[in-house]
Amino acid sequence: MSRYQAPLRDIRFALFDVIDAEALYARLGFAGAQRDVMDAVLDEAARFTENVLAPINAIGDEIGCAFDKDSGAVTSPPGFVHAYEQFVEGGWNGLVAPEQFGGQGLPESFGVALKEMIDAANLAWGNYPLLSHGATEALKHHGEAWQQEAFLRPIVSGRWTGTMCLTEAHCGTDLGLLKTRATPNAADGSFAISGTKIFITAGEHDLTENIVHLVLARLPDAPAGTKGISLFIVPKFKVGRDGAMGERNAVRCGSIEHKMGIHGSSTCVMHFDGAQGWLIGQPNKGLMAMFTMMNTARLAVGIQGLGLADRAYQNALAYARDRLQMRSLSGAKFPDKPADPIIVHPDVRRMLLTCKSLIEGGRLLSYHAATLVDVLDHTSDAEEKKRADELLGFLTPIVKACLTEWGVECTYHALQCFGGHGYIAEHGMEQLARDARITTLYEGTTGIQALDLLGRKIMQLQGAGLQHFLGMIQAFCAEQSGNAALAEFVGPLALIAQEWQALTMEVGKRAMANADEVGAASVDYLFYSGYVALAYWWARAVAAADASSPTDLKTAKRETARFYFARILPRTLAHAASIRSGAAPLLTLDAALFDS
Amino acid sequence: MSRYQAPLRDIRFALFDVIDAEALYARLGFAGAQRDVMDAVLDEAARFTENVLAPINAIGDEIGCAFDKDSGAVTSPPGFVHAYEQFVEGGWNGLVAPEQFGGQGLPESFGVALKEMIDAANLAWGNYPLLSHGATEALKHHGEAWQQEAFLRPIVSGRWTGTMCLTEAHCGTDLGLLKTRATPNAADGSFAISGTKIFITAGEHDLTENIVHLVLARLPDAPAGTKGISLFIVPKFKVGRDGAMGERNAVRCGSIEHKMGIHGSSTCVMHFDGAQGWLIGQPNKGLMAMFTMMNTARLAVGIQGLGLADRAYQNALAYARDRLQMRSLSGAKFPDKPADPIIVHPDVRRMLLTCKSLIEGGRLLSYHAATLVDVLDHTSDAEEKKRADELLGFLTPIVKACLTEWGVECTYHALQCFGGHGYIAEHGMEQLARDARITTLYEGTTGIQALDLLGRKIMQLQGAGLQHFLGMIQAFCAEQSGNAALAEFVGPLALIAQEWQALTMEVGKRAMANADEVGAASVDYLFYSGYVALAYWWARAVAAADASSPTDLKTAKRETARFYFARILPRTLAHAASIRSGAAPLLTLDAALFDS
Repeated sequence: MSRYQAPLRDIRFALFDVIDAEALYARLGFAGAQRDVMDAVLDEAARFTENVLAPINAIGDEIGCAFDKDSGAVTSPPGFVHAYEQFVEGGWNGLVAPEQFGGQGLPESFGVALKEMIDAANLAWGNYPLLSHGATEALKHHGEAWQQEAFLRPIVSGRWTGTMCLTEAHCGTDLGLLKTRATPNAADGSFAISGTKIFITAGEHDLTENIVHLVLARLPDAPAGTKGISLFIVPKFKVGRDGAMGERNAVRCGSIEHKMGIHGSSTCVMHFDGAQGWLIGQPNKGLMAMFTMMNTARLAVGIQGLGLADRAYQNALAYARDRLQMRSLSGAKFPDKPADPIIVHPDVRRMLLTCKSLIEGGRLLSYHAATLVDVLDHTSDAEEKKRADELLGFLTPIVKACLTEWGVECTYHALQCFGGHGYIAEHGMEQLARDARITTLYEGTTGIQALDLLGRKIMQLQGAGLQHFLGMIQAFCAEQSGNAALAEFVGPLALIAQEWQALTMEVGKRAMANADEVGAASVDYLFYSGYVALAYWWARAVAAADASSPTDLKTAKRETARFYFARILPRTLAHAASIRSGAAPLLTLDAALFDS
Repeated sequence: MSRYQAPLRDIRFALFDVIDAEALYARLGFAGAQRDVMDAVLDEAARFTENVLAPINAIGDEIGCAFDKDSGAVTSPPGFVHAYEQFVEGGWNGLVAPEQFGGQGLPESFGVALKEMIDAANLAWGNYPLLSHGATEALKHHGEAWQQEAFLRPIVSGRWTGTMCLTEAHCGTDLGLLKTRATPNAADGSFAISGTKIFITAGEHDLTENIVHLVLARLPDAPAGTKGISLFIVPKFKVGRDGAMGERNAVRCGSIEHKMGIHGSSTCVMHFDGAQGWLIGQPNKGLMAMFTMMNTARLAVGIQGLGLADRAYQNALAYARDRLQMRSLSGAKFPDKPADPIIVHPDVRRMLLTCKSLIEGGRLLSYHAATLVDVLDHTSDAEEKKRADELLGFLTPIVKACLTEWGVECTYHALQCFGGHGYIAEHGMEQLARDARITTLYEGTTGIQALDLLGRKIMQLQGAGLQHFLGMIQAFCAEQSGNAALAEFVGPLALIAQEWQALTMEVGKRAMANADEVGAASVDYLFYSGYVALAYWWARAVAAADASSPTDLKTAKRETARFYFARILPRTLAHAASIRSGAAPLLTLDAALFDS
């Protein structure tokens, strides 16, 4: 079984030494977010995830969820219910929820640290409370007062969980095609929801007494396509305007999927058969309301990639220090042992350092993005709010896609460090690799994130978010221009930031002439952007470590940054060349001629 | 469930139009290898693999092998035994085995086409006959006459299968550490073998009446390390010098592994408890004899990557033509349908063309390498034999590592084309991804292949194989220098071949000063080499298609080659930069400071 130890030192380094979240939280008026409080919460979060969630991760994979065809009930794996009870009792569910609904009102970006630990400890389990977070966001921003009272309080307390019901068999990415219908019930202002949704995470389970589905459906006479989609609240057990739980609603789980991984997380087909639902937000504006949930969900899925990568790395590192195999090519390093530990071999170090640099850099990238959610929600300065919104919109697809793709890559390298043993279930490495594989698919595939980045955030919004990020890079480079100790990073960073801007202009120009150039460049552009962003964060990490960290951490950050600039950043060369080759090589072959 | 249709057109194109195997086989004196015979065999192979093996691939994954603790027996998945019977009856097992032992004596490289189809149709099943092929090679080259008669005949006929017993719990890569002992039995010249081997593919199963283990062990007073390893034949049921099968030998399966994939392939812990064995080859030269098996096994594992990639690609292609989702960014392509098929989207095409170009290019790379086995075994020209040996030694790690890594990559892209549906077991895409994951681990990880390539084939052997391959490129470029239609490929190919040579010199020079530079550069060098080699084969493919193919194929090859040069070959930029950054960024961080 794989081990997990929460990386508290690096989480604190990221939040407090690099991003300076303490000062930000004070400025934004978070009363409870003092350093000593947060330190205590982080320690407790580490204990909870290490001792309660991590130990039931393997059994959750092995046994998975069970479905009873007759009752439509889903039984979660052994230990999941008890762990959830402890989670709720510990108050973890409401950590970042608004205080007026029973939450503790801590910053979203602080909650991300808890989220990372949960995902690393037990990704499948983490999906149950995760979906509640999305429902909370949607209700907070779009719910009527009675809806917030009736649904939000029990969700925040953890008594109920939420879901997001978007996908149907014939439409995943293309929600404009959805067919689920909502017809008004004359009596009470509610609606009758009918249709079938698939891939509904936590759609049915035995962790809570009620489940609140947020469902996309069409009103009668709604316009075709995405402009005719509305959002509804459909609880498993009916809920009156007074918040009282009533009889069973006409919603039922029809089956659960057999999947590559996250076996402990139920993925449900949900049948709505005239189920009672309540409109949330404006009619035909459901997609907009759902986007509120999707954006936080996308950041959250990025964090899943980070958590899995970190757990995989920890185990590969322990194995590489322990496993004796072959001698170092430059001479035996441990002549008293039968062979050297494999961490002496440069290629094993290459795999480990790839993980370390992507994980620690990715932590900064994602935690910083999460602070923008806090700024957006809590600043009173309109200009700052606009900037946070644009920058967050720009960073969200990068965080989602890069951290999940790196999650896949790091679990790959970590498994590879184990050799053949990595393929065997008992070591737990292959579960991490299988679990990671969902993250580049759900909440929008990597390709969809890339289109969001290049098509929407760059082309439609004239790259406002990119300009803000480039501004951060320029400011940092200017600030460090006299610092000889940082020159080896600041020089290359400034150069590649310029290339990033030029490349963006080139792509933009070509896309004006042919819209397919966007789709042709998008994924390479996304990765290119992710690697440049990480170069910035690695330079910032070295600067922060130099300023305040003990020698060991200072050394580790500098050497890892050197590795990143020497060995990972050059991937941008391939992505840039690929982007510059344009759309033609992708488009000229007739679809009929693809067969071998 | 995923479908499979043998890519006969491209297999024929590779073997006959590009590599010109027919002429080669005639020159090497293969009497039975006429084109009409081979065409008929290929058609039959397609039918067998499509209709017998492919349909039991999913059930093999779902049910897997069963182990009975009391008897030590392994039961293969439903249908495996019957499929094996048909395989043997059809004469497939001996297709490339020597005629004097009951085989059909067809060329090894022709057998690779059958192998590709088997692996694509059912990788787990294919591992049972595969291991026999290795045992055949070892017995053919190193067995005494009576051993060949007693063991080789039943293996070639398919009545028995073989295994390779190398790995022990504490040593996989580092066989010098192995502990299994062999002590002489005074009476009959046999030995008593004692020890435990792990990860033994097909170590126990119910397909055949006997199983022949080739076991590495130490003789009494053998020198320490790899110079004290001998190879032994240890059958499950004892076999006398007369070939008669006797009583059960003291070898027993202790358990089978629970793995990420290839569930239908038994991976066994084998206990040898004074089992009767026969020395094969010279005492203490066992590793050399085993290398005979390992080299063909490494090519064979490369073909596994190719087969899985191809099956995954075929299914992704069918899905991409069928699945309607979103409109093309450059305007609706099928306005009469509710949405466009996703193959209109450039990024879906990028994923498909990545697969297509790596698969068809990889087919040429690997089939050509396999022809060198035929040259090596059958030429009477000493100079040609030496060249084939050097070139094959150089290409083997490239074929093994690149084709398996590309297999992982292509199954990844293909799954990604399915979106969330790719993660669901019923589509079969996730099985292909899980099955592919073993191929970069067994028969030497990618890192080990890379060390073999750079440390041994380049550094120790002064790059003789590379020089031969560069010679092939130069000859082709010279031959095509007046061909304007090929100029777009020949120009970049000639340039990158020069860079390959220069880069090799640079690495070699650095490695003289510090042996760790080899390990630091090795994997990047391997990929770099693989991509250049594929550029050569793509240029050759276009030339061959221009010369003799119908317009459709001509167009498909040219456009895919353009994609390859524009979108895949630039990966060499990142690998070259990474190589040139040297070993320091990998080595300076103290092993104690890797924790986050």
